[in-house]
Amino acid sequence: MANVDVIVVGAGVSGLVAADRVRAAGRSVVVLEARDRVGGRTWTETVDGVDDVRVDSGGAWVAPDQRLVAAELQRFGLTTTAQAGVGDALMRLHGRTRRYRGAAATLDAVATADVAQAMLRFTAAASKVSLEEPWHGDAARRYDAMTFETWIRRTCLTSKGRDFFRGACGAVLATSPSNVSLLHVLFGARSAGGLEHMLTTEGGAQDARVVGGMQQLAQRLAEPMGRWVRLEEPVSAILSDDDHVTVDSDSGATTAHRVIVTVPPALAASIDYRPGLPAGRTMLTQRMPHGSVIKIHAVYRRPFWREQGLSGEAMTDRGPVSVTFDTSEPVGDGYGVLTAFAEADDAIALAALSPQRQRAEVLDALADLFGQPAYDVVALQLRNWTDEEWTRGCYAAHLPPGAWTQVGTALRAPVGRIHWAGTETARRWCGYVDGAIESGERAAAEVLAALP
Amino acid sequence: MANVDVIVVGAGVSGLVAADRVRAAGRSVVVLEARDRVGGRTWTETVDGVDDVRVDSGGAWVAPDQRLVAAELQRFGLTTTAQAGVGDALMRLHGRTRRYRGAAATLDAVATADVAQAMLRFTAAASKVSLEEPWHGDAARRYDAMTFETWIRRTCLTSKGRDFFRGACGAVLATSPSNVSLLHVLFGARSAGGLEHMLTTEGGAQDARVVGGMQQLAQRLAEPMGRWVRLEEPVSAILSDDDHVTVDSDSGATTAHRVIVTVPPALAASIDYRPGLPAGRTMLTQRMPHGSVIKIHAVYRRPFWREQGLSGEAMTDRGPVSVTFDTSEPVGDGYGVLTAFAEADDAIALAALSPQRQRAEVLDALADLFGQPAYDVVALQLRNWTDEEWTRGCYAAHLPPGAWTQVGTALRAPVGRIHWAGTETARRWCGYVDGAIESGERAAAEVLAALP
Repeated sequence: MANVDVIVVGAGVSGLVAADRVRAAGRSVVVLEARDRVGGRTWTETVDGVDDVRVDSGGAWVAPDQRLVAAELQRFGLTTTAQAGVGDALMRLHGRTRRYRGAAATLDAVATADVAQAMLRFTAAASKVSLEEPWHGDAARRYDAMTFETWIRRTCLTSKGRDFFRGACGAVLATSPSNVSLLHVLFGARSAGGLEHMLTTEGGAQDARVVGGMQQLAQRLAEPMGRWVRLEEPVSAILSDDDHVTVDSDSGATTAHRVIVTVPPALAASIDYRPGLPAGRTMLTQRMPHGSVIKIHAVYRRPFWREQGLSGEAMTDRGPVSVTFDTSEPVGDGYGVLTAFAEADDAIALAALSPQRQRAEVLDALADLFGQPAYDVVALQLRNWTDEEWTRGCYAAHLPPGAWTQVGTALRAPVGRIHWAGTETARRWCGYVDGAIESGERAAAEVLAALP
Repeated sequence: MANVDVIVVGAGVSGLVAADRVRAAGRSVVVLEARDRVGGRTWTETVDGVDDVRVDSGGAWVAPDQRLVAAELQRFGLTTTAQAGVGDALMRLHGRTRRYRGAAATLDAVATADVAQAMLRFTAAASKVSLEEPWHGDAARRYDAMTFETWIRRTCLTSKGRDFFRGACGAVLATSPSNVSLLHVLFGARSAGGLEHMLTTEGGAQDARVVGGMQQLAQRLAEPMGRWVRLEEPVSAILSDDDHVTVDSDSGATTAHRVIVTVPPALAASIDYRPGLPAGRTMLTQRMPHGSVIKIHAVYRRPFWREQGLSGEAMTDRGPVSVTFDTSEPVGDGYGVLTAFAEADDAIALAALSPQRQRAEVLDALADLFGQPAYDVVALQLRNWTDEEWTRGCYAAHLPPGAWTQVGTALRAPVGRIHWAGTETARRWCGYVDGAIESGERAAAEVLAALP
């Protein structure tokens, strides 16, 4: 006898969307979540010591062409605010900081031409990658046999051109181009409307933020489910037999017809499956490492950079911070908030320091961009996602060379009564909140079609 | 209060050697093992249906220059038998099967020259890789930024030359050259005395087998420890505080001063650590996938190939089998046993078939080499190590591009009271039984130096 029709493992966006769609179809569902909160990699929290400032420590931005997330926000009456502010952005390269507006045009003519020719080749290659079956075809095998770094060295003619693509890899995947398959970067870029679109603020992937924070989406989805979303219930085992699937968590066993596992493959590997998973799936779980990123929030008495005509948006090659945004309230005289990211190798190096040294390194980097007032923080909060036991690295998981073509088919393929979701399984906006929604809807459709 | 001085997680060769050395120093130790047997990736078992034939389904061969394994075997009075038999070996390439003796000289002159020039370049590069700190230096960063496949395409001038190195990668790492960092292949080769040495039977890594099976080494190590080796005790959590470390397993909690975790990083990630591990270690556990190999034993009434003047040793590009060895008793009229391997992508493809189809594919491959009599098996046993819950892939874990230079320092570095062993952490013969012994000795020395 089944307790419910469907069990969902993980109350992030993908899991809650899946549960929502299953409920909407009149079937019963329970969501088991390891954390004491919903939202997964979306997390709107108070900055320590400043109770009236709430920041998005996880996924925050939406793009105008993310129609799935737009529909969910509209459904719950959630609104967005444009990221782009007034004033100049900053770009620091090789020790020089320049101001600019609009698209970053601070590279010299030769480097600009180099980035342009390489981007054309990148886009042409990406257009050959299937979103449904990225592992398919001769081109896929060729792209999957090399790192993105090999492609960069082979394609770019200038060191600034190479640095551009290396920086882009950190910005979108939070990993070094040596770690990732060219095929995966091409797939990810095509999935999100192109590499430039992913890097763009106005009109691109960083176009707008949710007023009140992105985590509200998960909270609103969870609300009507009440006690059917069970927090602090890490799943230890999934046991399948001919008729049912039983999921073991701290408070006991729950039985259902189908289960949707939404946690990334590396975490899903910690669950004890009986019978064991097929070899291809086991291999996949060992071949999807997570990016490494520390999201930083610096809170000031006021957004002092605006007084200098600066937008708060900056790119820098100085490290450990690589990019900043102004995430203060758009108008009024509230606190000024700078959001900054340490990505990939910078995140690893920063994480290895003492909290005091981390703080000093970050403030030095912000002062290098915005001057002495940057040292005068009311609060400074670092969120290292690799230290989060139930995530272990953001923004998402990526595939090293060889993995897509070898075991990529195991990413979405159900195993008996077990279905897989999570933004890593998305075709569009893979790695983003929009992709999480897509994956939840797809998994819900799979189980609804299979329920007795 | 500590129950024991040291807890060892895993009763493979590295764990038992570590425990043995800790006991020899007069300190108390308990070994917790998930399986119902000792030995880990060494496993001497009966072939189904043929009770008097025992085969090594795991690690089997020793090289003459593996002095650590030689010393252990001598200590327990275990002897070896030479692998090389009389008769011709076979090499099947592009549809043609040729007989040869000694070193494989069946490539044409151009291909032979190509392999030779590429091998010179490979060896020169490997000589620059530090066994202590493979992540160190500019050359390491360059080698770690590319796949072995990229190096092969760049270095080899002929398709047969490329196929040689691709085959070598499968043979020594059980993975495709697209999956693995050039730096890792260079490190592994240097660690084991060179790529050619790893591929060699007589005088090389496949020089001899242990009479009665390799698992005896673990059994003899475990014997004097009696009830201090606890089987069927998977470890779920490791909790460290200022004074002790507590390890949770099925039967309860055990407390010690130090713990040595010997399971490969991907499996070690399933343990719940309190406090959590440093970010670099968490990242490493996501960046050490295991190879994929199915070890096959075909048992015949007699070693019929010897009557044709064949040694039973063969290489083939036909798939799913890539290499075979005669592992029958050296003389006498007992059963004939062929050991065969399906490696890397061949193993994945074979694993996806039904048991009947697997059997048919393997027998077709053996008959392609040894003729019709190969179909007439008494028993055929396939051991897919990816399906082994407490291993999840052999021969060992490897590092994809970028991982050594990014988080390689986390491989051996103790975390508080937690020390790491296992053949993956070895400097010499990394991935072999000899490396497992080295790692156990090194970890034992670390904890003995740290014990109060």
